Amino acid sequence: MPAATTQQSPRAIQDAYPDRFAHCHGCGTQNPDGLHLQSFVDGDETVLHYSPDPVFSGGVPDHVYGGMIASLLDCHGTASAFAFAAREQPDREPSRYVTGTLTVKFVAPTPMGTELTVRGRLREISGRKVIVGLELSAEGRVCAEGEMIAIQMPSAS
Amino acid sequence: MPAATTQQSPRAIQDAYPDRFAHCHGCGTQNPDGLHLQSFVDGDETVLHYSPDPVFSGGVPDHVYGGMIASLLDCHGTASAFAFAAREQPDREPSRYVTGTLTVKFVAPTPMGTELTVRGRLREISGRKVIVGLELSAEGRVCAEGEMIAIQMPSAS
Repeated sequence: MPAATTQQSPRAIQDAYPDRFAHCHGCGTQNPDGLHLQSFVDGDETVLHYSPDPVFSGGVPDHVYGGMIASLLDCHGTASAFAFAAREQPDREPSRYVTGTLTVKFVAPTPMGTELTVRGRLREISGRKVIVGLELSAEGRVCAEGEMIAIQMPSAS
Repeated sequence: MPAATTQQSPRAIQDAYPDRFAHCHGCGTQNPDGLHLQSFVDGDETVLHYSPDPVFSGGVPDHVYGGMIASLLDCHGTASAFAFAAREQPDREPSRYVTGTLTVKFVAPTPMGTELTVRGRLREISGRKVIVGLELSAEGRVCAEGEMIAIQMPSAS
């Protein structure tokens, strides 16, 4: 008779952040009023899914506002840097990454009322610096492209 | 006897947006659940003041999160483009600007619990494209630098 198996939900990258660094409005598990964004490892990439509330509209009600799009890329970018560093530099002590520079190119209006997908890809890693390529899509169409230079915080801080 | 004078509050740049394009969560006058950010012309520059609610914390509670900083620069950047275009291209029919590309460089942690100041400066204007330099400071210290390439929407849309 086969042993019983237990199916576990995959663990979000943000779940590995120390509690003292987990107060981010976008993705902090310790922020009760935040958005609780969750990023996951997906093969060689990272992925985040999110459906913004209609209050986060852009200039017109049926599009998502730029600040929300930048927020999604920002939180997913630092989470991606954390995950890629853990994979590529397994001997390095893991610690939280913060954004050095974030660039967002808005290539098409982002529709409201549908699930958005953000993907992260490793472009470069060197010491404490990780460069992540980011792409936000909706209904199979790329709406925003981004790049983040993320910097690892000193583990003692 | 001198005539009575009426002191008027300065008009925010966003107050000039047509209502149908004024639903932005960050700065739309027609979004009842938004932040109602307001940008103003200030000499050759533009300025926005804002004190984020503590719920918008970053990884640690005493700093503002990156998504909020990007949101402030995004809304103030498109408002600045609108104002600079009105000044530099007075014969052009005014219409809403949208973000083409936004770059944010985080140069220092942004403290929570104090008023933030965002300034916009015209870098380049050509046809429907306006490039705006952005700077966010708190307590006299620059915390973030940004650049936006803003694109004018067709006035008929």
